[in-house]
Amino acid sequence: MSKLDSVVKDIAAEMRQRPDRGTVADYIPELAHVDPNAFGLAVADAEGELACGGDADLPFSIQSISKVFTLTLALGMVGDRLWQRVGREPSGTPFNSIVQLERERGIPRNPFINAGAIAVTDVILSGHQPREALGEILRFMQFLADDPSITIDRAVAASEDRTGFRNRALANYMKSFGVLENPVDFTLGVYFHHCAIAMTCRQLALAGRFLAHQGRNPATGLSVVQPERARRINAIMLTCGHYDGSGEFAYRVGLPGKSGVGGGILAIAPGAASIAVWSPGLDASGNSHLGRIALEMLTRRMGWSIFGG
Amino acid sequence: MSKLDSVVKDIAAEMRQRPDRGTVADYIPELAHVDPNAFGLAVADAEGELACGGDADLPFSIQSISKVFTLTLALGMVGDRLWQRVGREPSGTPFNSIVQLERERGIPRNPFINAGAIAVTDVILSGHQPREALGEILRFMQFLADDPSITIDRAVAASEDRTGFRNRALANYMKSFGVLENPVDFTLGVYFHHCAIAMTCRQLALAGRFLAHQGRNPATGLSVVQPERARRINAIMLTCGHYDGSGEFAYRVGLPGKSGVGGGILAIAPGAASIAVWSPGLDASGNSHLGRIALEMLTRRMGWSIFGG
Amino acid sequence: MSKLDSVVKDIAAEMRQRPDRGTVADYIPELAHVDPNAFGLAVADAEGELACGGDADLPFSIQSISKVFTLTLALGMVGDRLWQRVGREPSGTPFNSIVQLERERGIPRNPFINAGAIAVTDVILSGHQPREALGEILRFMQFLADDPSITIDRAVAASEDRTGFRNRALANYMKSFGVLENPVDFTLGVYFHHCAIAMTCRQLALAGRFLAHQGRNPATGLSVVQPERARRINAIMLTCGHYDGSGEFAYRVGLPGKSGVGGGILAIAPGAASIAVWSPGLDASGNSHLGRIALEMLTRRMGWSIFGG
Amino acid sequence: MSKLDSVVKDIAAEMRQRPDRGTVADYIPELAHVDPNAFGLAVADAEGELACGGDADLPFSIQSISKVFTLTLALGMVGDRLWQRVGREPSGTPFNSIVQLERERGIPRNPFINAGAIAVTDVILSGHQPREALGEILRFMQFLADDPSITIDRAVAASEDRTGFRNRALANYMKSFGVLENPVDFTLGVYFHHCAIAMTCRQLALAGRFLAHQGRNPATGLSVVQPERARRINAIMLTCGHYDGSGEFAYRVGLPGKSGVGGGILAIAPGAASIAVWSPGLDASGNSHLGRIALEMLTRRMGWSIFGG
Repeated sequence: MSKLDSVVKDIAAEMRQRPDRGTVADYIPELAHVDPNAFGLAVADAEGELACGGDADLPFSIQSISKVFTLTLALGMVGDRLWQRVGREPSGTPFNSIVQLERERGIPRNPFINAGAIAVTDVILSGHQPREALGEILRFMQFLADDPSITIDRAVAASEDRTGFRNRALANYMKSFGVLENPVDFTLGVYFHHCAIAMTCRQLALAGRFLAHQGRNPATGLSVVQPERARRINAIMLTCGHYDGSGEFAYRVGLPGKSGVGGGILAIAPGAASIAVWSPGLDASGNSHLGRIALEMLTRRMGWSIFGG
Repeated sequence: MSKLDSVVKDIAAEMRQRPDRGTVADYIPELAHVDPNAFGLAVADAEGELACGGDADLPFSIQSISKVFTLTLALGMVGDRLWQRVGREPSGTPFNSIVQLERERGIPRNPFINAGAIAVTDVILSGHQPREALGEILRFMQFLADDPSITIDRAVAASEDRTGFRNRALANYMKSFGVLENPVDFTLGVYFHHCAIAMTCRQLALAGRFLAHQGRNPATGLSVVQPERARRINAIMLTCGHYDGSGEFAYRVGLPGKSGVGGGILAIAPGAASIAVWSPGLDASGNSHLGRIALEMLTRRMGWSIFGG
Repeated sequence: MSKLDSVVKDIAAEMRQRPDRGTVADYIPELAHVDPNAFGLAVADAEGELACGGDADLPFSIQSISKVFTLTLALGMVGDRLWQRVGREPSGTPFNSIVQLERERGIPRNPFINAGAIAVTDVILSGHQPREALGEILRFMQFLADDPSITIDRAVAASEDRTGFRNRALANYMKSFGVLENPVDFTLGVYFHHCAIAMTCRQLALAGRFLAHQGRNPATGLSVVQPERARRINAIMLTCGHYDGSGEFAYRVGLPGKSGVGGGILAIAPGAASIAVWSPGLDASGNSHLGRIALEMLTRRMGWSIFGG
Repeated sequence: MSKLDSVVKDIAAEMRQRPDRGTVADYIPELAHVDPNAFGLAVADAEGELACGGDADLPFSIQSISKVFTLTLALGMVGDRLWQRVGREPSGTPFNSIVQLERERGIPRNPFINAGAIAVTDVILSGHQPREALGEILRFMQFLADDPSITIDRAVAASEDRTGFRNRALANYMKSFGVLENPVDFTLGVYFHHCAIAMTCRQLALAGRFLAHQGRNPATGLSVVQPERARRINAIMLTCGHYDGSGEFAYRVGLPGKSGVGGGILAIAPGAASIAVWSPGLDASGNSHLGRIALEMLTRRMGWSIFGG
C-alpha cells in the first residue's frame, strides 16, 4: 500500500468516528434526506494512482462544485470576454448576498458565488435551448471523469426550482441590469440542473485532474485547457472557492478548492493530485465541516500546501 | 550569469521603458515627491543567490508591506489569540473602508487592511511605550534583512500623522468597540512610523526569505517562525495582500504578495524565492502598476506560480 | 372666482410655460410615450369646492400613488398586524433598493417603497384569486372618487410585467424570507395592475379627500377610516412618500404626499384640502419635477404647510 | 385651571407611576447617574401660558436637542450654503452610523444625526476660537429661553470628551473628505460642550417657542428667524429628529420633535405650542420611552397632530 493510500484510509477511518459532523443543509428540501454519517475521500495523483477511502463510491449532489466546470466551459466558449459579465475578486459576503450586486450594478464579484455562476450559465446557454446547454455541461463532466454513467438528479433540481427564491431574486436582479441575456427561467433551469449533477468522490477526483496537471488529463495525455488557464482557475478557486470562508480554507488547508452545499469539496494540489471529499454536514460558512478537516490532514501529511511544503 | 539573473535584468530593462506607469500616491503628501520613473527588482533564491535589477538599491517607503512583519511579530507575541482581534478573510472592500467595521462590530476582516494592521500594532504595543514598540519592529526588520542601516523616514511618518484622518477615524471607531487597548494616539503613532520604514528592494527581498523557506533564514539556517506559521502568513498574503485587487493578483501573478502605496511589493515563491519589486505608480486598486506586471513576467518565466508550474 | 380657484389657475398657467420639465420615466416602456408638456392640477377643499387647472381631466398612470390606497385597504383588512410584514421608517435608499431587505431579513422598511407595497399587495391578495383582489382595489378607488369609470391601463400593466425584473427580484427575495404568502407571480400580477390604474387629477383629488378630513368623505359624510388611521397614513406619506426625496419634499412643500413615476403626486393638507398634480417629467429622486414646484407654490399661497401657516 | 394645565398635570401624574421606564443611557458615563424615575413636562402655548408638570424645574443634559438650536444659528450665519455641507434626508440608519458617510463621501445625511451636527458645529466655529463659538451658542439659548442662568455641565462634556470615540471617528472621517474646516479637536470640543448644556423642561419649552410661532417669540413679539425658516426647521425635525425612530414618532405623536440621549424631547405644535418633556429611560432607538408616550397622550387630548386634528 502506497503512502497516499495509507494516509487516505487513515483519514477516512478517523472521520467516520468523529462526533462533530456539522449541519446538513436543508434549504433545498431534497438535500436534507442525506445520511449525516457518510464520508468519502478519493485522491487521483500524478502517477495515475487513485486512492479511495470511506464512501468514495456513493453519489452525492455536487451543487456548487459544478461551478468550476461551467467556468471552464464558458472560458472555452468566449475566452476573456467572460470577465465583462463577472469579476474575479473575493466578495467578502455570503454566497447568496445581493448587496454587492446593487453596489456594482449587477456584475457579480466572481464566478463562484451564486450570482456569478448564474451569469456564467447564461453565457453557456447563449443561443441554445436549455436542454442542449445542459447536455453539453453533462457530457463535459462525463468526458473529464471518463464515465458516461454520471447523471442529473432530477428530484434535486425540481426541489430547488420550487424553492430557490433567493437565486430567482439574484437572476432577476442581474436581468434588470442587462447582465443576463436569456430569459431568466431558461438560465435558472440550466443552473438548477447542473447543480443537481450527482457524482461519487471517485468520479469527481478524476474529473478534476486537468486542474492539477497544467490543463492536461494525465491518464490520456489529452489537453483540456491551456496551462495558464488551469493555473488561473486554480487561483480563483483559492481566493473565492469557499464564499466567505475562503480565507479560512486557504489558511488551514492551503489548496485551491471548491465546496458545494451537498457537502462535497474538490481540491487541487497543483502538480500532485486532484482530491474529492464528501461529508454532508456543513459549518457556519456553508462548507463541509469534516471535508475541510480531512483536507487539512491530507495536505499536512502529504506536504502538499501551495504555501510551502 | 544565471537564468534568474538574466530574467531579472531583462525585466528591469523592459520596465524602465514602458510608458504606462500608473499614478503616484498623493494622499500622503510626502510620498508624492518620488520619481515616477524609478523601478527596482531584487530576488533572493533558495541557493542564496541575490539577483538585482534597476533601482534595487534605492530606498523607498515600504508602507503597508510592513504589515507582513508586524503580523509575524504579533503572532510571535500572542499566538492564535491574535485572531480574537482581527479576522482573516478577504474584505471585498477598499483598503480604508469603514463599512465592514460597522457591520462586524469593530473587528477588522484581516490584518492587511488598514484597520486590521492598526489592531495588530495595538497588540504589539500592549504594555509598552510607543518608542519601545517601534524599536522592536525596526530591530526585527534589521535582523531579518541582516542590515542594521534600515531606518524610519520621520518626514513621511510626520506627514501621515498630520493628514491621516481616515486612519484616525478607523482607529477611533475600533476603540469605540473596545478592539484597541492602548490610547488611540499611541497606537497610531507606532503604526504611522512602522509604515514609514524605508528599505531598498535588496533589503526587502532579504527580509522576506523566511516566508519562502518554511520559516527559516536560508543563509543562516536560523528559524524565524515555525513552518506552519510561514505557510499561514503566505496564505493570508495570497487572499488579502492586495486589498480589493487580491483576486486579480492571484489570477495574474499566482504568488502570495503584499503591496504598499509607496509602490513596493513583497512576493513569495514558496520553496523558491523571496522577491521585492518597486515602482511608485499605482493602479486603481492602489497596488504598484509595473510592480505587478514585472512579477507576472518573472513568475511565468521562472515557472514559480503556486497554482501549477 | 374663489382665491383657491384663482391660485390654481395661476399655477397651471405658469407651469405650462416653464422650460425645466424634468425627464419622463422610460423604465416602463409604455410610460415613455406621454407628452412631457402635460400639466394638471386639481384641489378638493373642505367646503366641497373642486378647483381645477391645466390638464386636470387627462388620465395618467397613477403608479405608486396607488400604494396609499392599498395601504388603506390592507389596514382595513388586518389592522396593526400589517406591521409585522412591513415597517414604517424612511429607508434612506432609492425606491427599488434591495440592500435594506438583506440587512433586515426581508422586511421592507415602509409600505411606500416598492418592496413594501408588494408586501402590502400580498396581504390584500391573501386567500383570493388575483382577479378578485384587483377588482376590490379598483372598486375602492371608484368608490372614493365616486366615479365608476376609473379603469386599469392593461398595456401599461403588461409592459411592466414584461420588464419589471427589479420588482421580480424584490418579490422573490422577500419570498425567500417567507414575507410573501402567495405565489410570487400572483402578487406581482396584482401589484403591476394596481400601479397601472389610470386616473385624472380631478378623480385623484376626490379619492384623497378622506385623508384630509379625519377619515371622512366631506361630500357624503361617510367615514372611510377612523380619524387616527387617516392621521397615521398622512404621517407615513410625510416621512416616506417620496422615497429618498421625502426629506426634501417635507422641507419645500410641507405636506404629506405620495408620488408616482407616471408624474402624479397626491398631497394632503389636513383639514383643508386633497390635492392632485400631474406633470410627467421627473427629478433625480424619481418624483415629478413641476408637480413638486406647483405644490410648493400652492402651499405657500394658501398657507397650508403643516409646519406652521 | 385651564384644559392644557389639567392635561399636563394628568399626564405627569400617570407617567410617574408607570413601571415601564426604558433604559438610561450609559454610553456617556456621567449620564448614567440620573434618577430613572424623574419625569418632567412643560408646555408654552400661543397665549403665553406655561403649563408645567412633574420635575419640570429639574435641569437635565439636553444632548442632541441642542442640534435644533445650532442648526438655527448656522442657518443664520451662512444661509442655504449650509446645505453644501450636510443633507436633509432621513438616514435610515442609527444616529452614529458611519456607513452612510462612506457611501456619500463624507456628507452627512441631515443635521440631526451626530455626523451632521458635528458638521453644523464646524460651520459655527469657522474662524473663531472654540471658547467664542461655545459662548455664542450658550448666549443664544439663554436669549431664547429668556434665562441667563442656563449653563454647561462641564463634567458631562469632559466625560464625553474622554469616551466619545465614535464621534471622534465620525469627525475624522468627515475631515478626510474635507467636510470639516477646523481642527477636529476644536470642532469636537464645541460639539461635546453644546450637547452638555443643562436645561429644565420649563427653559426648553420657552426656548422652542419661535418654532411654534412662525419664527417669532410670542412673549416679546421679536422675530428670531423668518417664518419660512421656522417651517423648514420643523420639517427637518419631523423627518429626521428621532434618528431611525423618526417614522415611528411621526406615526404615533404627529409633531416635529427632537430627542436627546439625556431623555429630553422638544416637540413643536405649529401655531399652538412648544413642548418639552423629560424622562431619562430610552427605547431601542435611543429616544425617551415615556417622553414619547407622554407626547402621544398630549397630542391626542389637545388635538394638536399636524396630520389632522
